[in-house]
Amino acid sequence: MSAGVGELAAWLEECAAEIEIWLSSWVAGLEERLQGRPPLAEAMAYAVLGGGKRLRPALVVASAVACNPEKAGDFGARTDLVRDAACAVELIHCYSLVHDDLPAMDDDDLRRNRPTCHRVYGDALAILAGDALLTDAFSILAGGVGSPEGRHGKIPSDAVARLRLVEMLSRAAGSAGMVGGQVVDVSRSAVGGGLDAVEGVHCLKTGQLLAFSCAAGAEAVGAGRELVSNLWSFGETVGLIFQIADDILDETADPAEMGKRTGKDRERGVATVTGAVGLQGARLRARELAGEAASLLGGLGESAALLRSLPAWLVARSE
Amino acid sequence: MSAGVGELAAWLEECAAEIEIWLSSWVAGLEERLQGRPPLAEAMAYAVLGGGKRLRPALVVASAVACNPEKAGDFGARTDLVRDAACAVELIHCYSLVHDDLPAMDDDDLRRNRPTCHRVYGDALAILAGDALLTDAFSILAGGVGSPEGRHGKIPSDAVARLRLVEMLSRAAGSAGMVGGQVVDVSRSAVGGGLDAVEGVHCLKTGQLLAFSCAAGAEAVGAGRELVSNLWSFGETVGLIFQIADDILDETADPAEMGKRTGKDRERGVATVTGAVGLQGARLRARELAGEAASLLGGLGESAALLRSLPAWLVARSE
Repeated sequence: MSAGVGELAAWLEECAAEIEIWLSSWVAGLEERLQGRPPLAEAMAYAVLGGGKRLRPALVVASAVACNPEKAGDFGARTDLVRDAACAVELIHCYSLVHDDLPAMDDDDLRRNRPTCHRVYGDALAILAGDALLTDAFSILAGGVGSPEGRHGKIPSDAVARLRLVEMLSRAAGSAGMVGGQVVDVSRSAVGGGLDAVEGVHCLKTGQLLAFSCAAGAEAVGAGRELVSNLWSFGETVGLIFQIADDILDETADPAEMGKRTGKDRERGVATVTGAVGLQGARLRARELAGEAASLLGGLGESAALLRSLPAWLVARSE
Repeated sequence: MSAGVGELAAWLEECAAEIEIWLSSWVAGLEERLQGRPPLAEAMAYAVLGGGKRLRPALVVASAVACNPEKAGDFGARTDLVRDAACAVELIHCYSLVHDDLPAMDDDDLRRNRPTCHRVYGDALAILAGDALLTDAFSILAGGVGSPEGRHGKIPSDAVARLRLVEMLSRAAGSAGMVGGQVVDVSRSAVGGGLDAVEGVHCLKTGQLLAFSCAAGAEAVGAGRELVSNLWSFGETVGLIFQIADDILDETADPAEMGKRTGKDRERGVATVTGAVGLQGARLRARELAGEAASLLGGLGESAALLRSLPAWLVARSE
């Protein structure tokens, strides 16, 4: 009932291409709406269309397929809610990268093999483009962006599901979620606290947005409360594995291959799993978490095959 | 049918005290939720509880009272939706001030007679506190923050109204609203464009959030589409008057009285109404706009007395 790692990799690539189309179409609408403010539209497009694995939106799609394949729709014909949740979470992810790269934060010059947003557009515009992406993500969830009815447009029939998604995304991304984790990271206050402290930060910084992605896919196809909640926990666990893989790659990989500077976390004194339990300990922990993740999908059948192979794919990435 | 300017000033003060209680209670909940991340909670509290006129949330309340006094509730007993919309818009306003004051933007050291957020907490934490306030505003609108049910809490009965508010606020604050205006301001691209160009920026930078405030009060008490739309336009017009008063005060007022540096817009080459049409022209334009604003409240009766006196109060502020 689990797809092969190669099969998942191929599916993720196909899914990323689908998501690229959605994001390009959103950016095209943006450029139309922002006539007269071209620098903002440009900086936002640069931040959104810079490639990347599109892991978070792919998780939205994979979870929707896992919970209700018919309602999730096929390639090229997803339901609005699946597409909107996927685009919204990717906008949040992109904004967080733009703000994280700022000189006042991580001060990075390179992201996905290109100069970072503030290196191209300046710090002020990068801050504002990030703010706009964050805000517009909620416009997308509200189902209102791009509608010809304008600001008092008609309310979609799936209003309750959309409001739940707003609640879930704001919680995952806000002070009690991603931003909260970023603060601990910036203040270095998890350093020296051992595995629990590091995983606490990772669960916020990376875990909450992946948790949202998995739960949002379920919510978007009308899954029940318990399944949504299990997929939230699955996403949190996947987030921990993802971050371990990232920590391992940051120690071992070639910068050219990563498209960004490596070894920087160690240099900066950021708390990492490899720092807390060593390279081998980190690999063991990732495999342990993969087992926990699998058990959270127990209630799902064949439709969850792709989702089920995700932990193994993440573990393989770093080995 | 219009209250005196003195009566409005007294009401605004009373209303600000009510709003202070709501915001303090939200901050107290935040500090509880963010145990282990005290610097974030502190920086957010500093940004939110620094005083200020609370004009935007007061407009939410005044509009709710104007449209449906019974449903809006009395002092100390507002409906949840009125209170949540008021808090959400003030959080957005506070985040925008924190980001605007950053060295990469306006580089201000003083705000409301206190050091700006980044001067106290550093640039990184100020960026993140702003991001968190912006995100958490949508949590408040989703009706989920602070609920004991946690992230999968029950959906409130007013879900459709809440989703409308999410749509309106994200549109007012995002790329096609406040942030869009800020970009034009930062890039100085409205300089030399005359009154229309300046008012175009003001309508985005200040007008959209005031428009949201007025329309949100109406939406929160179940007003019809046309009334919500008229109040949106009323708020936009009030925004233009507000900004003219600000431009005039920036030219003429004493810094100690303003609680911030004055004359800075002129120094920096930001486009202002006084720059476009002179001090006397700006005063005339404010009075003209006050007439336009009044006509947008034509359909409302005695309950709109406070709202009706707002333009005159703003004009008086700068004379």
